[in-house]
Amino acid sequence: MIDLRSDTVTRPTEGMRRAMTEAPLGDDVFGEDPTVNRLEEYVADLLGKEAAIYAPSGTMTNQIGVHVNTNRAEEVLIHEGAHVFVYEGGAPALLSSVQLRTLPGEGGVLDPETVRAAIRPENVHFPRTRLLCLENTHNTAGGTVYPLEDFAEVAAVARESGLKVHLDGARLFNAQAATGTPAREWCDHVDTVSVCSSKGLGAPVGSLLAGTEEVIHEARRARKAFGGGMRQAGVIAAASLYAFEHNQERLAEDHERARDLANRLREVGYEVDPPQTNLVLVGVDDPERFLQALAREGVLATPGKPGYVRLCTHLDVGDEDIEAAVEAAARVTASLER
Amino acid sequence: MIDLRSDTVTRPTEGMRRAMTEAPLGDDVFGEDPTVNRLEEYVADLLGKEAAIYAPSGTMTNQIGVHVNTNRAEEVLIHEGAHVFVYEGGAPALLSSVQLRTLPGEGGVLDPETVRAAIRPENVHFPRTRLLCLENTHNTAGGTVYPLEDFAEVAAVARESGLKVHLDGARLFNAQAATGTPAREWCDHVDTVSVCSSKGLGAPVGSLLAGTEEVIHEARRARKAFGGGMRQAGVIAAASLYAFEHNQERLAEDHERARDLANRLREVGYEVDPPQTNLVLVGVDDPERFLQALAREGVLATPGKPGYVRLCTHLDVGDEDIEAAVEAAARVTASLER
Amino acid sequence: MIDLRSDTVTRPTEGMRRAMTEAPLGDDVFGEDPTVNRLEEYVADLLGKEAAIYAPSGTMTNQIGVHVNTNRAEEVLIHEGAHVFVYEGGAPALLSSVQLRTLPGEGGVLDPETVRAAIRPENVHFPRTRLLCLENTHNTAGGTVYPLEDFAEVAAVARESGLKVHLDGARLFNAQAATGTPAREWCDHVDTVSVCSSKGLGAPVGSLLAGTEEVIHEARRARKAFGGGMRQAGVIAAASLYAFEHNQERLAEDHERARDLANRLREVGYEVDPPQTNLVLVGVDDPERFLQALAREGVLATPGKPGYVRLCTHLDVGDEDIEAAVEAAARVTASLER
Amino acid sequence: MIDLRSDTVTRPTEGMRRAMTEAPLGDDVFGEDPTVNRLEEYVADLLGKEAAIYAPSGTMTNQIGVHVNTNRAEEVLIHEGAHVFVYEGGAPALLSSVQLRTLPGEGGVLDPETVRAAIRPENVHFPRTRLLCLENTHNTAGGTVYPLEDFAEVAAVARESGLKVHLDGARLFNAQAATGTPAREWCDHVDTVSVCSSKGLGAPVGSLLAGTEEVIHEARRARKAFGGGMRQAGVIAAASLYAFEHNQERLAEDHERARDLANRLREVGYEVDPPQTNLVLVGVDDPERFLQALAREGVLATPGKPGYVRLCTHLDVGDEDIEAAVEAAARVTASLER
Repeated sequence: MIDLRSDTVTRPTEGMRRAMTEAPLGDDVFGEDPTVNRLEEYVADLLGKEAAIYAPSGTMTNQIGVHVNTNRAEEVLIHEGAHVFVYEGGAPALLSSVQLRTLPGEGGVLDPETVRAAIRPENVHFPRTRLLCLENTHNTAGGTVYPLEDFAEVAAVARESGLKVHLDGARLFNAQAATGTPAREWCDHVDTVSVCSSKGLGAPVGSLLAGTEEVIHEARRARKAFGGGMRQAGVIAAASLYAFEHNQERLAEDHERARDLANRLREVGYEVDPPQTNLVLVGVDDPERFLQALAREGVLATPGKPGYVRLCTHLDVGDEDIEAAVEAAARVTASLER
Repeated sequence: MIDLRSDTVTRPTEGMRRAMTEAPLGDDVFGEDPTVNRLEEYVADLLGKEAAIYAPSGTMTNQIGVHVNTNRAEEVLIHEGAHVFVYEGGAPALLSSVQLRTLPGEGGVLDPETVRAAIRPENVHFPRTRLLCLENTHNTAGGTVYPLEDFAEVAAVARESGLKVHLDGARLFNAQAATGTPAREWCDHVDTVSVCSSKGLGAPVGSLLAGTEEVIHEARRARKAFGGGMRQAGVIAAASLYAFEHNQERLAEDHERARDLANRLREVGYEVDPPQTNLVLVGVDDPERFLQALAREGVLATPGKPGYVRLCTHLDVGDEDIEAAVEAAARVTASLER
Repeated sequence: MIDLRSDTVTRPTEGMRRAMTEAPLGDDVFGEDPTVNRLEEYVADLLGKEAAIYAPSGTMTNQIGVHVNTNRAEEVLIHEGAHVFVYEGGAPALLSSVQLRTLPGEGGVLDPETVRAAIRPENVHFPRTRLLCLENTHNTAGGTVYPLEDFAEVAAVARESGLKVHLDGARLFNAQAATGTPAREWCDHVDTVSVCSSKGLGAPVGSLLAGTEEVIHEARRARKAFGGGMRQAGVIAAASLYAFEHNQERLAEDHERARDLANRLREVGYEVDPPQTNLVLVGVDDPERFLQALAREGVLATPGKPGYVRLCTHLDVGDEDIEAAVEAAARVTASLER
Repeated sequence: MIDLRSDTVTRPTEGMRRAMTEAPLGDDVFGEDPTVNRLEEYVADLLGKEAAIYAPSGTMTNQIGVHVNTNRAEEVLIHEGAHVFVYEGGAPALLSSVQLRTLPGEGGVLDPETVRAAIRPENVHFPRTRLLCLENTHNTAGGTVYPLEDFAEVAAVARESGLKVHLDGARLFNAQAATGTPAREWCDHVDTVSVCSSKGLGAPVGSLLAGTEEVIHEARRARKAFGGGMRQAGVIAAASLYAFEHNQERLAEDHERARDLANRLREVGYEVDPPQTNLVLVGVDDPERFLQALAREGVLATPGKPGYVRLCTHLDVGDEDIEAAVEAAARVTASLER
């Protein structure tokens, strides 16, 4: 099977396995795991922040981000297709007692004026607007990059009104690879940023939240209460560190293969959004039926936005897989037309 | 001052005051206040439900409705302009740990297909979609009636998928007065309904939630925990009962005055949405400045949807107030034009 | 029936009814009810605080107190028999996401050293200890007064460690009447205090939370989200104001009757705790059976601490009721012995 | 340094490292990690339950256990020294909106009559008592075993009243090793049980919650929302599986060393509780000062119950470490006496 469902499905490489085997370990709940400490420093530095904290998932680092930036009964402004709203099990209400206010925006980009208008005045009837959540690249929009200038502008609108800004950067390094802009330049405009080692970077497990020393100190409490405190976490942190150190640049290969895949699918008759990074959205009549047919031809993918399926390139996808996937898609067209 | 800000500003009439003075009382926390008991039975019967519970505000009865119909981390479908989302202080996340998913809809009416598409499939990433909240009449849309047929259709879509349905009927009796359809006909399609005695009906305080015996039994627990258990609540329940018994039909007068107000404002040059009930939305260039100018002329109103101000007719507004309000608005035009 | 269940069962007196009828009213959600405003100022002043807020129940004012003094996942130190822990429906976890840590203490009085030892050091495993809740008089301990010196000492221990202090003063004026110490002297040692007009003071409904301007400003948000914002709340606030103005001193009569009741019950053979205020705890073999037998003799009471029943004197209990209650209790002894 | 702080500090053995390197992997969020699946089946079977779920920490599996067995605003009965109450950051209130009601009990064992008396009757003032949490072995009591008969009796009291029972079995296999009673015999009396691979069993990370299929299905939702969903979790699950398969029996060695340590410390003059498992409580005048002095002598330990320090034997502690630790303690005595 060629697995184009997600860049989360990658298996650790030989080098990464070795890093895990050789990592010095300690008890991270006591703050004594040298590998975790090294990873946290590495990522804080990479993102231009004072400190970072390691956690078992991107959902947890996002939710810690929501938690440390808000108080009970406050409101969070967020894109209507954001991962935090769509895919995190209702966690903002559950873990932080906050209300999400969703906003529209082409390609996951929010209009600064829409954000400005959504910030509530002081009034006992209204929850306080406290946090703006942004996502880069934007998953449900199709792996789109949040242009740095737009990003800076909307973040500034929020911060001028006293809001905090959190960045869901699960695929932030894809934005970096696609544009050549260092990841930290987006981070300059936010209070907290969550990044994942387990997506395109290829580690098996692990995400980090970065911010000021003070915020990350509070984040350690939230992580403990959420159940994310791990013991000899260095065994997985070693793979995460390896991923950050070795796999940032090669994301460009995934993007090239995604463009290649898009072009070829267009050639065999599909309507395809031009991919900016590693996610390819393909328009089909009946996504469910298409996915089943494609699976029978040996290729796995997932539903995308309504009327689309999503194909994702990653570390475990080579040129030959792209070729095979296109052939499978061509066979599906033929079979569905019959 | 002529106060057109809200139908909540009405003061109790002589008859209502007398009802309060003469009401037999007991301790309602022990279930022994005869006036509260009589009111709860009256309203349950009026709405075609098995039971009802009295509480100090419409926010509380809405929030109890959200509470008893949901569990932690579930999702509630609701219009993007709904009172429960806009004006209740972020309470659904705070009191019930649920996520709101807002949907658009002209006049507060939701498209059944939009609702159907928003009901999430079973998937560990998604909060369970558990409740549909409707509002009739719809406050921020301008006091619009939810047509019974549309209401029945969207409620059926929800219930077929196992969702519960809650009706915010703070102004349900305005819908009844505007259409001649008994309030209970909307209630037939919902699990819980919240109604207010303190809006157009003119009581000083008090709302009720109606539903099955079982649900209202649970509601008593939620009311206690939210701090809504009152002792000799009969003193205010007497006014609420009086309001339900005497003031349902006279809401038609408010509607007539609203239409009259709308027509006359149009005659003096304003752009006015045709009112369906007692709320009149008037388009103005700068709502904030307009409201200040109007207040200087002796008339109070509130902001409406963006670009509009809202004027509300009620028990304490007579024909002469309408006339005076139009004259004031005319003077404002003149003054703002200068 | 002679109702000795609680001082919450009192019915408004003639003067109180008249105050309600004549009260000037407005919409308190807009801050415009003159009677509510006057009551809030009166009570703030009475308790030596900058501001106060009116709410429908003592549970709500306690819970707002817990809310404004804490953040999510913090810990509250509280007596194991406190109303906030025992009788408020689990609200601290529900409305404020805080953990209660209960402590023992004779007569509802906490040992300062026990409190000091319970304050947690900074450690990621521990919830932050944020609030100390005290109760005066103490309901489940039998209406016991918290001696001012002990109160000051334990509050000082808390505040030295950066904790806030909340006082559940539902029956604070009983402590004042029993000792001659003005209520405000206890209030000097706390951040927030909740008092009830609907217990011994005899109003039908209503409690207040007092504190700094800043805290009460936040309390208005919490009250709104909890559903405690009322419209023409002046109708009941008038009774509450009347109660504060007229009924503080007469609480001494309730205490005298309670002592009288205790002495006479002892004379007819009961084991009775010497009452400090208006609650009388009577030791009986089988409280449930005793209460039923007593009710058959025309007297209502409630269970007390294990092995005890509780009899409460109040505004609607006269000397002849005490006499009749003792006779009823004597008949019960006789009947249970047979 | 000899590290006797906790059995969580162990580092993976060679065999365990190899198991991690060779484990087949998949994406566990899609349910496709064969190693995680194998581990979950193994542990479910071991504990006599239908299903199990893997999570990053014992705090998370305990909190999922609390979550799936309760609803909002309910009450949980629990020992006053329980890990869930003392060391989990206030999570029950934060993640589940439930109130803990703590009970005393020698050695972590609850008196069935105390539990029975703490179950609240149906009353709108009271939170519903929904869950009994037990802990075996009991950490803060000093690694004490919950005798099976006592355990069965108290669980029966709870279940007869409709409560659920959760077992915090972080060190359940120590109870098994100490008594010869299979772990599953305790599990027969509970609805959910949490066990840790990262304590005495020696894995770096990972705990499991076991229960019925239905409950574990819900647990998957809670784990996702709490942020505990991991991708190629097999890399750590392999170590956990290895720990369960290879290290259950050798816990007896830790216990023997603990007894040895206790005896020898007694010989050099310390007051030591007789250890039942791998935790040794040593009475000292000033625990903080003692721990610092001991650390200077090359031995790390932690505070125990008030007036005690705790020493813990584990996989990385050999006979020579015991000997060295006793010598260090003897030197400390000498130095503190000077």
